[in-house]
Amino acid sequence: MPQNVGNIGRTCVLTGSKLHLIKPYMFDLSGKALKRAGMDYWKYLNLEIHGDIYEFLDKYGEEKIFISTTHGSKIYTDVTYGDNCFIIFGKESSGLPDFIHEKYGDSAIRVPMIESSERSLNLSNTVAVVTYEALRQIGFPKMK
Amino acid sequence: MPQNVGNIGRTCVLTGSKLHLIKPYMFDLSGKALKRAGMDYWKYLNLEIHGDIYEFLDKYGEEKIFISTTHGSKIYTDVTYGDNCFIIFGKESSGLPDFIHEKYGDSAIRVPMIESSERSLNLSNTVAVVTYEALRQIGFPKMK
Repeated sequence: MPQNVGNIGRTCVLTGSKLHLIKPYMFDLSGKALKRAGMDYWKYLNLEIHGDIYEFLDKYGEEKIFISTTHGSKIYTDVTYGDNCFIIFGKESSGLPDFIHEKYGDSAIRVPMIESSERSLNLSNTVAVVTYEALRQIGFPKMK
Repeated sequence: MPQNVGNIGRTCVLTGSKLHLIKPYMFDLSGKALKRAGMDYWKYLNLEIHGDIYEFLDKYGEEKIFISTTHGSKIYTDVTYGDNCFIIFGKESSGLPDFIHEKYGDSAIRVPMIESSERSLNLSNTVAVVTYEALRQIGFPKMK
């Protein structure tokens, strides 16, 4: 969803995080579209776009990677992120592909919720909550 | 912004938090509008609507209240929320009125950011980050 991507980009700019976007995605990141959406902050974003998940994994698959899923075995506050980790988030609708769950299942985290609804948190909210927990643990570097 | 209100409502449902909305606001909470926005979770929301800020303060002004502002003196992770506190968030555009800052300045919290931009976090993201920190401190009650 374009709104989620915009909000996630804003969170990345404001926290000094790098955003990796993995295709396929359905939103338009042309200058015209960004301008129309008021995304003036996008130019400050540290962004890397990957053609597909395999391209991403070839380059970064051996880094310290967490995956955020509604069925993660650990609560997101019970892991140690450290500097320079990666946190992978899936689409709000369908989550992450099975082989990612298999590869990174040991570092699968979840944001706890009340089981009253079929819904989960908005994706940009989940990204913000997990990112700020990782930053809390390392003392909010360069942030005021 | 309707999208923010929707996402904030969803966060409240999924965390067992009560949402207080204080008028004036510009969005439509009729059944028709909620349906159009896919807000099927809204019916699970513990919601109280206040005619204005004074009505809210008459009823709840002496409770344990934090205010979230970009200029808050304390980082949001450096306060103790406890059970049943209130956290007041202003509009993304204009923040909170001056007299609220004066009354609750001692419990003003901020979410740290990098000072690279005039922008701040999306409002629904700020709400999620602060709410989940308060919940982390009390052990995510009734959440899984």
